[in-house]
Amino acid sequence: MALDAPTRRRAIEQVASGLFHDRGYAATSVRDIAAALDIRGPSLYAHVTSKEDVLWAIVERSADDFERAAEEALARLPAAAGAAERIGAFVRAHVAVIAADPELASVFVHEWRHLSPDRRSRILGRRDAYEARLRDVVARGMAEGDLLPTDPAVAATFILTALNGLATWYRPGGRLAADRIAEHYATFAVRALTEDSR
Amino acid sequence: MALDAPTRRRAIEQVASGLFHDRGYAATSVRDIAAALDIRGPSLYAHVTSKEDVLWAIVERSADDFERAAEEALARLPAAAGAAERIGAFVRAHVAVIAADPELASVFVHEWRHLSPDRRSRILGRRDAYEARLRDVVARGMAEGDLLPTDPAVAATFILTALNGLATWYRPGGRLAADRIAEHYATFAVRALTEDSR
Repeated sequence: MALDAPTRRRAIEQVASGLFHDRGYAATSVRDIAAALDIRGPSLYAHVTSKEDVLWAIVERSADDFERAAEEALARLPAAAGAAERIGAFVRAHVAVIAADPELASVFVHEWRHLSPDRRSRILGRRDAYEARLRDVVARGMAEGDLLPTDPAVAATFILTALNGLATWYRPGGRLAADRIAEHYATFAVRALTEDSR
Repeated sequence: MALDAPTRRRAIEQVASGLFHDRGYAATSVRDIAAALDIRGPSLYAHVTSKEDVLWAIVERSADDFERAAEEALARLPAAAGAAERIGAFVRAHVAVIAADPELASVFVHEWRHLSPDRRSRILGRRDAYEARLRDVVARGMAEGDLLPTDPAVAATFILTALNGLATWYRPGGRLAADRIAEHYATFAVRALTEDSR
């Protein structure tokens, strides 16, 4: 069956993210990707100019997914929402993106360092901006008295690294569904920064 | 200067862990390790039979460090110590091991999957046992009423993945000293599982 170009590119990214996840980027060749897709080299090179381009496409798509999910989750909240609701919404959005494609998220979290310096610095800039969003929620919550005084940068990193750990250990069909994990994680993250409200 | 065999082996592991951290295990060759040590291949092979043996030595050493630190930190507590003290001691011990050698810890956290299947399952067994220790602290704290009801496995994973994230981002000489970060992390971890005691 002939696939159109965007569908074919997507299939290549999907297969490549599985290989990059299982073996690591450095240990995967374009030939491995072609073999997994059961297509011959020249046909692959019509869609892929280099292995790094595939990694870059994966990393950009994953960054888009995380940013859009956080943006939409925060935008859906009422303007009067407090810090606990904002943190909960951020955590649930992040977990949902990982749960939708844990291998893709894992490649985003771990393999970006194999990008060329220019692309690496672009993706680090996007990661920083994403983390700053959570940091700002924490700082604002502190300023408004919703959260206990803390170091907002350390708090944001603590929460985000715990969330990103999910990309390594979460797999569909495990003991807990993703939305149950998200509820636990949202509770931990909010409690870590607040007095219990009961 | 001639080094004795254990000192030389240690130097090889140190240099290799820096390279494995920077480039990833798969992208590092024994030749790279030899070049970084400024020794010629045959001399290196007198100490190193394979690249995987170096990774294994690094991973075993790091596992030893984490296990010993947690063991000693928990053993030092009075028998009557509550869950908050136990979790705090565990967190501080874990952070101290990462802070003592973040690159080594990062290789332990990320590169173990490149080990042969037999070694991989041995190290996964040790990681599971280590995590079970924290899980047991949480479960006991719940049973004794020190901690709010939760899923102890999810709680232990949340805390441990946040801690392991430090291996990626902590570097000596940063804005916060390791013991300040440890205090923040201990506070977050304890609060995530308790009512505020004030």
